[in-house]
Amino acid sequence: MTLLRRELGDVLRERRRAQGLTLREVSATASVSLGYLSEVERGEKEASSELLASICGALDLPLSKVLIDVSSRMAESEGLATTVSLPVPAADVVSASAA
Amino acid sequence: MTLLRRELGDVLRERRRAQGLTLREVSATASVSLGYLSEVERGEKEASSELLASICGALDLPLSKVLIDVSSRMAESEGLATTVSLPVPAADVVSASAA
Repeated sequence: MTLLRRELGDVLRERRRAQGLTLREVSATASVSLGYLSEVERGEKEASSELLASICGALDLPLSKVLIDVSSRMAESEGLATTVSLPVPAADVVSASAA
Repeated sequence: MTLLRRELGDVLRERRRAQGLTLREVSATASVSLGYLSEVERGEKEASSELLASICGALDLPLSKVLIDVSSRMAESEGLATTVSLPVPAADVVSASAA
């Protein structure tokens, strides 16, 4: 079972790293203890809605955008990822037995 | 400040009602107490990731879909709602003063 807090933690960590911020910096701006933020990022602790808003604020990131990221990760693990079909000319289609 | 648990509660309640299910039915299927489910729907209690998965299971609803709903509600309250532009033939555009 894919848990919300795991995906949420992954997204928050990725977003923080993409901005080149340390756990220490974000925890200070968000007024959250470094240990707690680290546990949230590792998906070990549930972040309360207030704390989550605070972390998003520290990352200057709307919560809605974080949720979209989380949602698409969840969809993938739920097997609901949208598949992309690319047109392939018939001549390029080779069956396994013919290869 | 828009809190995740409020929007999440609203979405869960809407989805339950749309299916014509009662709090009692969903709480029984999800193995959650009726009072707790009710508080979650009212945005008064944070649902743990496990509980949330359980409620979504009872609603036969992928969590990713719930999160997309929540995300678009959050975006609206954050003033980030995407605007839809529809092409309009120039001749159909009538200014207010001309009407």
